[in-house]
Amino acid sequence: MSITATDAARGLAGVDERLQRFFDEKEALAGDQGEHFVALWAALRRASIGGKRIRPSLVLHTARELGCDRPQAADAVAAAFELLHTAFLLHDDVIDGDTRRRGKPNLIGEFYAGARSHGVAERAALAWSSAAGILAGDLLLHAAQALIARLDIDEGRRLGLLDLLDRTLSVTAAGELGDVALSVGTATPSLADALTVTRAKTAHYSFQAPLQAGAILAGAGSREHDALSVFGHRAGIAFQLRDDLLGVFGDPAVTGKSNSVDICRAKLTPLVAYALGTEHGPRLRLIMEAGAPRDVDVASAREILMHSGACEFVEGLIDDHVAAAEAALREAALPETLHERLIAIAHEAGARSW
Amino acid sequence: MSITATDAARGLAGVDERLQRFFDEKEALAGDQGEHFVALWAALRRASIGGKRIRPSLVLHTARELGCDRPQAADAVAAAFELLHTAFLLHDDVIDGDTRRRGKPNLIGEFYAGARSHGVAERAALAWSSAAGILAGDLLLHAAQALIARLDIDEGRRLGLLDLLDRTLSVTAAGELGDVALSVGTATPSLADALTVTRAKTAHYSFQAPLQAGAILAGAGSREHDALSVFGHRAGIAFQLRDDLLGVFGDPAVTGKSNSVDICRAKLTPLVAYALGTEHGPRLRLIMEAGAPRDVDVASAREILMHSGACEFVEGLIDDHVAAAEAALREAALPETLHERLIAIAHEAGARSW
Repeated sequence: MSITATDAARGLAGVDERLQRFFDEKEALAGDQGEHFVALWAALRRASIGGKRIRPSLVLHTARELGCDRPQAADAVAAAFELLHTAFLLHDDVIDGDTRRRGKPNLIGEFYAGARSHGVAERAALAWSSAAGILAGDLLLHAAQALIARLDIDEGRRLGLLDLLDRTLSVTAAGELGDVALSVGTATPSLADALTVTRAKTAHYSFQAPLQAGAILAGAGSREHDALSVFGHRAGIAFQLRDDLLGVFGDPAVTGKSNSVDICRAKLTPLVAYALGTEHGPRLRLIMEAGAPRDVDVASAREILMHSGACEFVEGLIDDHVAAAEAALREAALPETLHERLIAIAHEAGARSW
Repeated sequence: MSITATDAARGLAGVDERLQRFFDEKEALAGDQGEHFVALWAALRRASIGGKRIRPSLVLHTARELGCDRPQAADAVAAAFELLHTAFLLHDDVIDGDTRRRGKPNLIGEFYAGARSHGVAERAALAWSSAAGILAGDLLLHAAQALIARLDIDEGRRLGLLDLLDRTLSVTAAGELGDVALSVGTATPSLADALTVTRAKTAHYSFQAPLQAGAILAGAGSREHDALSVFGHRAGIAFQLRDDLLGVFGDPAVTGKSNSVDICRAKLTPLVAYALGTEHGPRLRLIMEAGAPRDVDVASAREILMHSGACEFVEGLIDDHVAAAEAALREAALPETLHERLIAIAHEAGARSW
């Protein structure tokens, strides 16, 4: 993503330093609490490295360009959003039974492999690694709020950020629950249900909340705050819809993730929900419900998604959301550099190949 | 427990009111986020009801008797400890695969039964209920800190309570991880390992931390704070060791929990770890590792625990910890009513039959 590859890396040094200091402190304290706990914190540090830092970047650039006078507080909030992201990924991985992320074993996969190499039976190693994933997520979920609760800023901004975090946790947990409900449901999920999950599970905490956090840090007025909120909502949905397309049609060498897992897992994205509602639906359902589809079945599912009009439909939705994001920004008189940057982010969120 | 049955219930009305208000607010907000999320909050309210309120009672009585001038803040902290307790129980239940607690289906059991009654297959219903348990715990873990982060008290006390919560989360998560490690380990766990888990997983957050929270709320001096900390540490261990004995020899009608599950699950408490180190160890190991022991095997395990000297050993440990708890209190000049009350609590923690 050029927003991270070019200028987002610029200015994120403070966040990286804050995160390193955080993990240094936690690992030092963990020493009193047994080897497994030390290993857990070391794995948590690895889990938080290698991400694209999209959320911290949104927090920081918004805060700075709207005139935030507390750079250290902004770094801490940006770090908190990265920890929150890692916490959500960890619990999502436990819930989905995923043992890999970003092309490598994730924390759960590491703990599983470690136990197996010590002779632990498969079932016990699964229980162990899943427990490690739950506890690891708990630690970071707590840590994200702990950073915000200790901010050395005026009470109004601190409470505003705490309220935002409450809302973020609630929306994201509801989205995750809705996502699991779609995958276990007996009824055919509607396109509307699938879109609700898209919005709640990822778009809110990845785009809307970080932008709102930046606005709160800068003490922005309600007009700017509202515009950023609508912008983030729309850009976040575009980002997630593109993610769904890349999860089926992307190049794993570029995205760093499989382009068959979503089909194999019968993941009910808006893309799939649309196709299921067309005349091609029954064929797609057969493939996706078959349990462990072969490569040739995955290829068929891809063709169905193309021919059913689902891809076109989702591409159209992305365009609509990017346009709505742009329109929202015009409602507020943001500094020009921030305005331009956000427009570029919205376009990239919808058009990226990574 | 007489400490809850007699005078602890007195004065807990503020906490109960605070918790009801908390759940009212959350359920009202959940309405926007789908039926499953509403059901999750309703189940969370049920999960938080019916406990013995031991932790809120320790917070409140300590705070009040040491002269805390902010009763509403004390109620909020007491409520936070109850939410934290429920959060830990939920994630512990997910980790252990438990679907019942306090003689009824727990939140996970409720979600499982609900899915099954809607025709969801067993495996999918298990995944769904486990996801619900993880997310439910996340919500309360977050909520406990959210209450403390918003306390309307001076910054010194607020930061002191946030630090205490950090430490509590860390110690408890490490204890839980250690507990799972004992149950999946390939090596025979030592008695020392089992005692470390006892201390970390339960004693800290159930006794030591609530007492410290009360001291912080009251602005107590370091001498009182330290005495309460040591007292809570010792009384908490006595409480948990008694819990282990009741988990094998207790009357389910009084304790509200099974007295065979710990043996069936091969739970490596200090009681069991001691027995495994005696000449009776191999027989006990055979029973506990057999998978699904019959009633007659559970009865044999009980006899082995008696004859190996393990019960006597644990009873002796309990006496030592209760005595050490008493001795710690003598180091501080606490108000007489608090002193007497805590002595009674330590004795009851070690001697209770419930």
